[in-house]
Amino acid sequence: MPPHRRIDVVLDSVKRLQRIGASANLLNLLQKQHPADLAEVFGELSDKDCRGALNLLLDHNSRLAMEALIEYGAEHSAALLADHPADQLAVWLQDLPSDDAVALIDELPDDLSAAVLEQMRSQASGDVENLLEYAEQTAGRIMNPTVFALSEDLTAGEAIGALQGSREVEMVFYLYVVDERRHLVGVVSLRRLLLVATETPLQRIMTTDLISARVDTDQEEVAEHVASYNLLAIPVVDEENKLVGIITVDDVIDIIKDEATEDIYRLAGVSGDEHVFTSARESLRKRLPWLAVNLATATLAAFVVRAFQATIDQVVVLAVLMTIVASMGGNAATQALTVIVRGIALGELTWGNSRKTVFKEALVGLGNGLALGTVGGGVAWLMSGSLVLGLILALAMVINLLVAAIAASVIPISLRAMRIDPALASAVFITTLTDVFGFFTFLGLATLFLGYLEAGA
Amino acid sequence: MPPHRRIDVVLDSVKRLQRIGASANLLNLLQKQHPADLAEVFGELSDKDCRGALNLLLDHNSRLAMEALIEYGAEHSAALLADHPADQLAVWLQDLPSDDAVALIDELPDDLSAAVLEQMRSQASGDVENLLEYAEQTAGRIMNPTVFALSEDLTAGEAIGALQGSREVEMVFYLYVVDERRHLVGVVSLRRLLLVATETPLQRIMTTDLISARVDTDQEEVAEHVASYNLLAIPVVDEENKLVGIITVDDVIDIIKDEATEDIYRLAGVSGDEHVFTSARESLRKRLPWLAVNLATATLAAFVVRAFQATIDQVVVLAVLMTIVASMGGNAATQALTVIVRGIALGELTWGNSRKTVFKEALVGLGNGLALGTVGGGVAWLMSGSLVLGLILALAMVINLLVAAIAASVIPISLRAMRIDPALASAVFITTLTDVFGFFTFLGLATLFLGYLEAGA
Repeated sequence: MPPHRRIDVVLDSVKRLQRIGASANLLNLLQKQHPADLAEVFGELSDKDCRGALNLLLDHNSRLAMEALIEYGAEHSAALLADHPADQLAVWLQDLPSDDAVALIDELPDDLSAAVLEQMRSQASGDVENLLEYAEQTAGRIMNPTVFALSEDLTAGEAIGALQGSREVEMVFYLYVVDERRHLVGVVSLRRLLLVATETPLQRIMTTDLISARVDTDQEEVAEHVASYNLLAIPVVDEENKLVGIITVDDVIDIIKDEATEDIYRLAGVSGDEHVFTSARESLRKRLPWLAVNLATATLAAFVVRAFQATIDQVVVLAVLMTIVASMGGNAATQALTVIVRGIALGELTWGNSRKTVFKEALVGLGNGLALGTVGGGVAWLMSGSLVLGLILALAMVINLLVAAIAASVIPISLRAMRIDPALASAVFITTLTDVFGFFTFLGLATLFLGYLEAGA
Repeated sequence: MPPHRRIDVVLDSVKRLQRIGASANLLNLLQKQHPADLAEVFGELSDKDCRGALNLLLDHNSRLAMEALIEYGAEHSAALLADHPADQLAVWLQDLPSDDAVALIDELPDDLSAAVLEQMRSQASGDVENLLEYAEQTAGRIMNPTVFALSEDLTAGEAIGALQGSREVEMVFYLYVVDERRHLVGVVSLRRLLLVATETPLQRIMTTDLISARVDTDQEEVAEHVASYNLLAIPVVDEENKLVGIITVDDVIDIIKDEATEDIYRLAGVSGDEHVFTSARESLRKRLPWLAVNLATATLAAFVVRAFQATIDQVVVLAVLMTIVASMGGNAATQALTVIVRGIALGELTWGNSRKTVFKEALVGLGNGLALGTVGGGVAWLMSGSLVLGLILALAMVINLLVAAIAASVIPISLRAMRIDPALASAVFITTLTDVFGFFTFLGLATLFLGYLEAGA
């Protein structure tokens, strides 16, 4: 976390002004801040103080307040807004770009969001309703439908005139060119427009080979296109290639962050839409199923141990040492799994190099197993006084780390081949697998060489 | 992974043309692709075919080849380039924007990069060397030093003239305004320039309240600024506020991806700079230290178990059931840890809500413990035939899941307070902690109630 000295000063002032009840000064201070800074201030205040500051700002500068809420995040903001009446919310939401309004309305309680939409409909706001018709996480749902377009029949000079006459639209730097039926036919940059003679027809300077998204394109794919082609925005078209919206790079950054969060969470067995501020009840509901799965798999591992109960009964130190084999396998598998799953997400791992990758992971697993098995075997020898037991632990560790590495790479690659999200092969499953296999290898080897162990122990 | 139909077609053609040795057709096809698409093709080809296609392109269109390599990633590209002579590399690198050239040179073997820099120096390329003087992961190292700036004395019309006369520069949409000594004094958007009369002085239309980064600002902070203020680029200034470079949003997207990767990796005990294509030897060198730490902590857990060896010797089924308690604690802790660490990274977790967050995690831990402890206790009762043992396991699970939740939230929050990266409290440490504590609670309780167990078992 980088230090935010200016924010700290603002935050201290906000707290002081709230304490002494100086509303006019507080409002004055809040109004001078950038929406992103206000969002940060909201995050640092207690819930009560945050509502106080927000409501003050909503009363006097609702547009700035709503913009700050957008930066603060839709889920948390919806919680702050939920106790305001629907007609009031409708008025405030009207000021926002419709993609931002939709994000907030989506997070409101169902009955309230219906009431808000009802109010907004009576105020003739078709945009928001239209966006809500597209499926979640598609280009249609997240696009801004207010997109500036130029007719293909214009000249460069006429285009500049049209631009000068236009209402404020979101970030104009690519100018999309459409035909008379609003089909997307080309794009011209604002810069290029400036560099040509005013009488040049747009058709002569526009690029026709342009990258667009369809309303039903998955948002992750949209983000990938914008990122890999270094775009500042991508136009969105409907089934007939008619221009219906635009997605700008700032929205793409949010998508990339969300998708990274989803990847991290899936690896750990957490639902992608959980946040720090999700309620305890909701978090419990989201995490419990994964842990229940883990209870079942851990029970499976326990059954493997129980199969060797007679061996443990004879050489009880096996119960001490088996935990080392399982723990090492689990951690080595988590390392490999993480590199593989992230490599798939970033597009580093492809069909061309997947065989090579599995081979590499097997090599790393073998190397780790040999190095750590030697040390672990020594530890086991010292703890048990039995050289044979040391050798068994070393061998079990080599085998388990090799198998862990292969499983942690083959499983996500196979899931991907079946078009299943490879992050679903979460650490929960892989570590159970290494537990089961680790117990089996170590206790199985110990059972095989039981004669030597009883003599040595 | 979204399907890339067009890329698949290109890839098939590339493979076919390589097989039949049709170099002219292959070159023709490659030259029609966008650099980002070429990068994807390189990734899908075998190492040999990739080198073949790359070298063909380097011979005939080195600029496109180098741009494709930049999209492909510096580390992997450096490996592909390493067998070319230094003077040849210097010529190719000369064509690239200097920030991209620096990223590639950084990844070359040390002696080769020195030789390349020597060659580039003789061709008078100060930019690359200047960038290399800034520390890694700072704004200075990643900025593009070619930045278009306007003198504050110009009018809007003169500014447009200056722009029209300028060489091609990276993404012009913000026009930075400097005084006669190149101090950054303001910014004006290209759009605004178009909307005012040509004789308007820049000083009247420029914004003076602008956000900039200093050469020594950490790249993560730069990315955070660009993302939260929705910027398309951020100017970089030196200690004296002189404009020395620009960082554009496409570079910021790369930083955000890298930082997310780093977070995911740290949680799993992997060094942030490991990739799918990192060599086995290098991966081993990076992962082994973490696993060695884990071996030490797993040994610690084994010592805890050994302290209760006498109890296990009397009731051997304890060895079977203790693995369930430890496994559940580890997974519950990983869930909580992941939400907390990601919440800190995304700025959701702040000082204002950290106490509330720990309380919430404790509640979730208690809830999970009660639900799963009941089920787990039943399983233990069935497996062992002892009701007392079932109750002990249930109680141990409640305690362990509660402690796991508290530890997994308090530890990263405390690390952050000490300005240590909270992701360093990786799953390796937290799961060892829950192993140690889980074994201790379960076996300790069992030892306390040993009298009842022996009668029941």
